[in-house]
Amino acid sequence: MRELTDRISSEGEVIGSEILKVDSFLNHQIDPEFVLRMGTELARRFKDEGVTKILTVEASGIAVAMAVGLALKANVVFAKKKRARTQTEGIYSASVTSFTRNETVDIMVSKKYLSANDVVLVIDDFLAHGQALQALVEIVRQSGARLVGAGIVIEKEFQGGGAPLRASGLRIESLVKIENMENGKITFG
Amino acid sequence: MRELTDRISSEGEVIGSEILKVDSFLNHQIDPEFVLRMGTELARRFKDEGVTKILTVEASGIAVAMAVGLALKANVVFAKKKRARTQTEGIYSASVTSFTRNETVDIMVSKKYLSANDVVLVIDDFLAHGQALQALVEIVRQSGARLVGAGIVIEKEFQGGGAPLRASGLRIESLVKIENMENGKITFG
Repeated sequence: MRELTDRISSEGEVIGSEILKVDSFLNHQIDPEFVLRMGTELARRFKDEGVTKILTVEASGIAVAMAVGLALKANVVFAKKKRARTQTEGIYSASVTSFTRNETVDIMVSKKYLSANDVVLVIDDFLAHGQALQALVEIVRQSGARLVGAGIVIEKEFQGGGAPLRASGLRIESLVKIENMENGKITFG
Repeated sequence: MRELTDRISSEGEVIGSEILKVDSFLNHQIDPEFVLRMGTELARRFKDEGVTKILTVEASGIAVAMAVGLALKANVVFAKKKRARTQTEGIYSASVTSFTRNETVDIMVSKKYLSANDVVLVIDDFLAHGQALQALVEIVRQSGARLVGAGIVIEKEFQGGGAPLRASGLRIESLVKIENMENGKITFG
């Protein structure tokens, strides 16, 4: 998606060789019309899959997921982050270890909003080491729903999260892929 | 807003006499088209104010704020929650004490995304005791931006958060007001 590579190139902040901040349009400030275009494009790629539910995780995934939900006329469910697994009844849950923040959080979804009758598209802003996406896939597995794939805004390929998930049969569509960010320079895939 | 009172009546879960959960369309599952209608209505009420920026706080405010931002063609900034105030340079910040969760968190906004040149509309899903809204107002004050008001989806009037803010001159528009929830029964204002 050309508009996205352009904005990452001009507005993205590379920290070290691992972290990319796109706070100006996605992760802190949101450009609603641009997010709508990105969500519409992700939706287009899954439009014939009969999706009944979009699953994402708070907070940065919500805006994109809402845009996808508008395009596919499907409800969005956002998994909630919990520091400790205090509640286990009535929920699906999975652990996410963040490499960036060096912490583990549990994410949870109420059983009320995801069931074996659903056809699920997972949406997230970033795919890096794949921890968050694996946790979302695990939640879909627990629900018994059918998972049609994952739509990602920015995939940092060099961090390797996508490969094992694709190898397991998951369809992953990323709007842009980044091959590496060495010396602060972003190379797109 | 009739559609909203109807959905609160049929889907809202009252816990004790203080907590209202609307997880089926706003706080856990999101109905994107309904949220778009609610955001469009909030935007309509502030359409002549020259708003340049929508300010909300993660996570539940984001979907509504995005809908308002689409209608007003303004960017959305969502304040981030931090457990501890580790970073103070380059940010505006304020504390929020949650009565429901009995904890205090700091919320922060980067100075990059809010300045004295902005005309700000604050958006949030709930107005209860007013702690979150006060913190957002404080962040706008720190930025020097002009604040035109606050748009709220559900105001629980009986918890009193709105009164002192309105008395201080803040325009608050709520899509619905709840007068009380005694004995699990919701009475709209």
